[in-house]
Amino acid sequence: MLRYLTAGESHGPALTAIVEGMPSNVPLDAADIDADLVRRMGGYGRGGRMKIEEDAVEILGGVRHGKTLGGPIALVIRNRDWANWRATMAPDAAAARQAPERPPMTRPRPGHADLAGGLKYDHHDLRNVLERASARETAARVAVGAVCKCLLREFGVRVIGHVVEMGGIRAHTERLAAAEIADLAEGSPVRCADPAATRRIMAKIDEAQARGTSLGGVFEVVVLGAPVGLGTHVHWDRRLDGRLAQALMSIQAVKGVEIGPAFDVARAWGCDVQDEIRYRAGGSGDAYSRGFYRETNFAGGLEGGMTTGQPIVLRAAMKPISTQHRPLLSVDVVSKEASRAGVERTDITAVPAAAVVGEAVVAFEMARALREKFGGDSLAEMRRNYTGYLDHLGAW
Amino acid sequence: MLRYLTAGESHGPALTAIVEGMPSNVPLDAADIDADLVRRMGGYGRGGRMKIEEDAVEILGGVRHGKTLGGPIALVIRNRDWANWRATMAPDAAAARQAPERPPMTRPRPGHADLAGGLKYDHHDLRNVLERASARETAARVAVGAVCKCLLREFGVRVIGHVVEMGGIRAHTERLAAAEIADLAEGSPVRCADPAATRRIMAKIDEAQARGTSLGGVFEVVVLGAPVGLGTHVHWDRRLDGRLAQALMSIQAVKGVEIGPAFDVARAWGCDVQDEIRYRAGGSGDAYSRGFYRETNFAGGLEGGMTTGQPIVLRAAMKPISTQHRPLLSVDVVSKEASRAGVERTDITAVPAAAVVGEAVVAFEMARALREKFGGDSLAEMRRNYTGYLDHLGAW
Amino acid sequence: MLRYLTAGESHGPALTAIVEGMPSNVPLDAADIDADLVRRMGGYGRGGRMKIEEDAVEILGGVRHGKTLGGPIALVIRNRDWANWRATMAPDAAAARQAPERPPMTRPRPGHADLAGGLKYDHHDLRNVLERASARETAARVAVGAVCKCLLREFGVRVIGHVVEMGGIRAHTERLAAAEIADLAEGSPVRCADPAATRRIMAKIDEAQARGTSLGGVFEVVVLGAPVGLGTHVHWDRRLDGRLAQALMSIQAVKGVEIGPAFDVARAWGCDVQDEIRYRAGGSGDAYSRGFYRETNFAGGLEGGMTTGQPIVLRAAMKPISTQHRPLLSVDVVSKEASRAGVERTDITAVPAAAVVGEAVVAFEMARALREKFGGDSLAEMRRNYTGYLDHLGAW
Amino acid sequence: MLRYLTAGESHGPALTAIVEGMPSNVPLDAADIDADLVRRMGGYGRGGRMKIEEDAVEILGGVRHGKTLGGPIALVIRNRDWANWRATMAPDAAAARQAPERPPMTRPRPGHADLAGGLKYDHHDLRNVLERASARETAARVAVGAVCKCLLREFGVRVIGHVVEMGGIRAHTERLAAAEIADLAEGSPVRCADPAATRRIMAKIDEAQARGTSLGGVFEVVVLGAPVGLGTHVHWDRRLDGRLAQALMSIQAVKGVEIGPAFDVARAWGCDVQDEIRYRAGGSGDAYSRGFYRETNFAGGLEGGMTTGQPIVLRAAMKPISTQHRPLLSVDVVSKEASRAGVERTDITAVPAAAVVGEAVVAFEMARALREKFGGDSLAEMRRNYTGYLDHLGAW
Repeated sequence: MLRYLTAGESHGPALTAIVEGMPSNVPLDAADIDADLVRRMGGYGRGGRMKIEEDAVEILGGVRHGKTLGGPIALVIRNRDWANWRATMAPDAAAARQAPERPPMTRPRPGHADLAGGLKYDHHDLRNVLERASARETAARVAVGAVCKCLLREFGVRVIGHVVEMGGIRAHTERLAAAEIADLAEGSPVRCADPAATRRIMAKIDEAQARGTSLGGVFEVVVLGAPVGLGTHVHWDRRLDGRLAQALMSIQAVKGVEIGPAFDVARAWGCDVQDEIRYRAGGSGDAYSRGFYRETNFAGGLEGGMTTGQPIVLRAAMKPISTQHRPLLSVDVVSKEASRAGVERTDITAVPAAAVVGEAVVAFEMARALREKFGGDSLAEMRRNYTGYLDHLGAW
Repeated sequence: MLRYLTAGESHGPALTAIVEGMPSNVPLDAADIDADLVRRMGGYGRGGRMKIEEDAVEILGGVRHGKTLGGPIALVIRNRDWANWRATMAPDAAAARQAPERPPMTRPRPGHADLAGGLKYDHHDLRNVLERASARETAARVAVGAVCKCLLREFGVRVIGHVVEMGGIRAHTERLAAAEIADLAEGSPVRCADPAATRRIMAKIDEAQARGTSLGGVFEVVVLGAPVGLGTHVHWDRRLDGRLAQALMSIQAVKGVEIGPAFDVARAWGCDVQDEIRYRAGGSGDAYSRGFYRETNFAGGLEGGMTTGQPIVLRAAMKPISTQHRPLLSVDVVSKEASRAGVERTDITAVPAAAVVGEAVVAFEMARALREKFGGDSLAEMRRNYTGYLDHLGAW
Repeated sequence: MLRYLTAGESHGPALTAIVEGMPSNVPLDAADIDADLVRRMGGYGRGGRMKIEEDAVEILGGVRHGKTLGGPIALVIRNRDWANWRATMAPDAAAARQAPERPPMTRPRPGHADLAGGLKYDHHDLRNVLERASARETAARVAVGAVCKCLLREFGVRVIGHVVEMGGIRAHTERLAAAEIADLAEGSPVRCADPAATRRIMAKIDEAQARGTSLGGVFEVVVLGAPVGLGTHVHWDRRLDGRLAQALMSIQAVKGVEIGPAFDVARAWGCDVQDEIRYRAGGSGDAYSRGFYRETNFAGGLEGGMTTGQPIVLRAAMKPISTQHRPLLSVDVVSKEASRAGVERTDITAVPAAAVVGEAVVAFEMARALREKFGGDSLAEMRRNYTGYLDHLGAW
Repeated sequence: MLRYLTAGESHGPALTAIVEGMPSNVPLDAADIDADLVRRMGGYGRGGRMKIEEDAVEILGGVRHGKTLGGPIALVIRNRDWANWRATMAPDAAAARQAPERPPMTRPRPGHADLAGGLKYDHHDLRNVLERASARETAARVAVGAVCKCLLREFGVRVIGHVVEMGGIRAHTERLAAAEIADLAEGSPVRCADPAATRRIMAKIDEAQARGTSLGGVFEVVVLGAPVGLGTHVHWDRRLDGRLAQALMSIQAVKGVEIGPAFDVARAWGCDVQDEIRYRAGGSGDAYSRGFYRETNFAGGLEGGMTTGQPIVLRAAMKPISTQHRPLLSVDVVSKEASRAGVERTDITAVPAAAVVGEAVVAFEMARALREKFGGDSLAEMRRNYTGYLDHLGAW
């Protein structure tokens, strides 16, 4: 089974990830990963840090001469700002006896892990919490997701993240093919495929900055090319819908997830939101259920916890970043006196970046689902099993 | 770690569940479980089956004289309709040679697992899929959840499921305390705490029946009494927000999940949706973060993937049941000819029942989170650890 | 991934197991399971209980008309003695108010879970521990193993357990083929393939009975037909050697495990215990590494945590049953006074039965390894993937 | 739950490990880890590499100012020989176009993962297998174990590995206390606490070298200070005996594991190998079952899969290193012609080093068992829970 662990603090030496369970002989290069790390750093409305960090991955294991070996893959992303934080964040005890560059952080920021984490882990210096809770950690997940995308690519599966709503402004992309959406979003400063909406969102971000506040939004992750039958209905924890929901909800600041237009569908008459089943002899190139197809996709590509062969359409609601220009009311955890929340460097919005993180966590779950269904230890074996399955679908 | 497996088909002999990881000496009686099984069967708009099945659990292991032993707990719920399905669903091969009561089911129902499951598991008789994919399986999850509630009860944690929207009609419960919501919902035929909305929803259900269609909706699950610091920010797959999202999204027909009013919050200015932190010396009885408190709860009780000590507020969007009075277009999987979808007994809506299932899956995740934080093998040990933690919070 | 849970107490209503992760369409009948349940009950030197229990499984889910459905499989084995234990072991609290048939058990038996379990789970009535710790639980594991054997059978994998040493008497089976060993062991009252050793062991058992004591021994589990490359070297917890060791060591009273003649090999010169690699063009029918073969098998069929295609040879050392005719010294856990250990019905030896349990736990691990390598959701898909792999081996 | 992943090849850039699930505020310094890395490198009979490496860990996350933060801990050990292997082992594809320092390795070494791994992962250059299968990987596990020892230290748990037999020469340590064994073994060039045996073993190693062959042996791992009740009898995969067996069997070249003198006990009369239970009011300082004690320890510290409070005594049988001075018969996997096995740098014996690896894997399992029983997120919380349990034992 595919699995991974990540480690690392926002201002520590590095972020580290290990991915275990990839087959051998999958083409994989650091550049594949770096491209997504750069995509994650972008977005109109980001703060200063993005300019400091020029993230790049170092592969420390599991890959040789541009191909996976079949063993665990180790990834390290150095924190470039580390030089300025050595005394504050040094792993060794000796550093604690030096003067740290920064005092302890004792005023928890509402909306962050600071307070609950301090109480839970018994840290009065809340830096011990926030350094790990920071969305900086998503760089490691993006790296893991990029590794997974290299596998998905071999099976024609593509994952596209884009912003569909910010500050109440909705993008209109109904008439666009997914590939067009990907291209347009890539060119938009807010990763939005609707140029008119892009402009209005940028203005809204400017307004938020002027007001000293922040913006949330909704991003969509679309998966193309997944064959019918990934995930399963037979046990709750193997359903792909649940796993994708967990993956997206586990992104910092994401508080809502829907598959297809779920909250709208919940309000409709049943007869108006069904995806009737049709069949075309001979199958079709872009339908991965070989002959069977639908003309609608209210289900968002998942029925009974399984892929239907249609595009998977996921949406995630991200709250506005909690840090405000004028810090919120808080309480000093040492003195217990009312105070303003501590300040960490922040953005006005990070929804465009979160869409890239969304791609990554979805890519991992899709790769995991492929691994579970097709098994195999080498790319050739996995592909042989996959092809055999497609042939079975065609003959079923 | 707390874990469970369920098994069983809708018209097979029984549903079975095993729950592993409960501490010893937790009071637990079959009646505790049966009460929730009955609650799950209710709801205006259910079809005929609910009258047939008078679900009751048989405890086959792990409990002695009304208390858990510390070992795995086995639960069996007999399918009362089994007598009428013996030849159709018998486990043994001999039965296949008899005349089954029913022919194979070969016309997949849109919106169900039928087609994807048939292709995946190589079943042309789609009964082999739908019998397991059926929401009948949730009876087993409700039984597991009821076991978990017995543990939660010992720690003052309560889980309340109720319907907040159906057919576009929203309940207004903003001014009600959670305990009132629970009482009112329990008395409502549609598990809705707003009597006016209940009446309108019932009329809407009648209208749906007259139109030959179905209704979806949104239910809310509220968790009261969870101490601050369950779940964690340190690794994505241990975040409680993600786990709760998976749990809810894995319920049949649930397609969307939000924590607090997430999709609304995503549209707001950041400054308008923050939960500022305040402190009251001496703590308070109903706040589980000992002194620290908030006057709002936009976060829905979770920050950084951890409980804040406030109520956890989760909402799940359920699609209208896919089966329609006039069957949808489909394709016979043997002949590949266009046909109408097969018909299985169904309801007009099951949102009220789903709210009970939602309680169950949330109860499991809360119990799991408690087990992870407080460890312990007996109830006394777990409680001692819990009390020690509350004392620590008070002194922090 | 293949997984299972078991539940149930020795004198409770039943043992229950759920197996999750089997592919669909595997032929499986209750008779397949019952046959192994009966084999487990045999063996010269068993006590009275074996005559009471005529174990038979009831399949409650996951199987239809003699084939697996692809969903979880539920198995229940009723405890036939239950009628005599109702008040003592009833799940419901009401029973506790009746006069139980037996008083609390407060004198822990050395060598059993009684004392550690009582302290850990806070049970002063040690029956609450011993009922689950009892080797009676292995009936559930044998049932699970029998399900796994049904899958292994489809891939030509056979698992054979037999006794190789008891009371210091070693069986000589060096010149026998594995199939002969299986047949001879099946016919031996002590599951030993060497008739001379069988006679001597039976005499030794008689002697033990006369002395009022018990006997341990060593059983061997051989796996035939496993293809090369199950398990993996890439991560410690996926190595098949480690998993098989855990499976065997987790059997009640097993305290040692070796792969091949490990403790002897550890004493030899390196040059004397190597399995040199040879090749025969065209492969061979009984070698599962397609052409590559060895003339020795010091490695016991596993190199680098992976199968080599040779027979897997595992040996497990079982301690003598701890209960003695004259109870051992112990301490009453309530009064803390020295006393003799409590008495539960027991055997003189259970090594022959343990060999059947050994088959079961090894069968599970082999099935799991096959599932991981070959994936697939139906038997046809899994077989297609398996065949493709064998073809790859032939062409490599 | 405590878990870890490792990555890295023998001659790649580095070994990497991530440990997830440690509580916060545990004192931990790189020096703690380095000390064990150096211990692993020692041992009479090692080859040349040990002089090159001088392993040292870099902590990249999870530790600040000498204390754990509660998040995942990232560890990197650079391979110092990497400079000489860059073209051969580079992760990037570009390197493959340069002239590698070494040709492909196509002649599998018997006794290693080479052949099975090549067939499984579809690698004809067996370096792609052996680089990960190499015992070099154990450096990462030793680092992980050292982290776990830092936790165990806080609970008075000590893990001692020492060699008890090599080349058929047995050490006599029956009269030594565990602490003496630790000291004596630490001073022995073959990590053996019996000075006479040390001398004879060293001579045997010299003889093996003269013969051009290798030596195996048996090492023992003793755990002191574990409280009664770690592990559990309630489910097979949570039994501590099985987990410890898996951990030890997963060490490269280990083929046998026993708990206490298991294979000898299996040959004895039952009455001669029991650990009768006694009680001394007031408990005792070094017995972790508070009052209850034994005068013997045939059980090796584990009954019913749980700790008894006595020392845990584990023994592992290691086969002689497979590589011989005169390479063994093999087959070139490309030409399929008979040939001599390829040659990788090797040792005459590595049993003394394996004893250190044994400490590490046992330390991990003990830490995991402590985490499961005592839960908690900070060291203070875990200790509070632990102390509460000891008090409960005293009052039970």
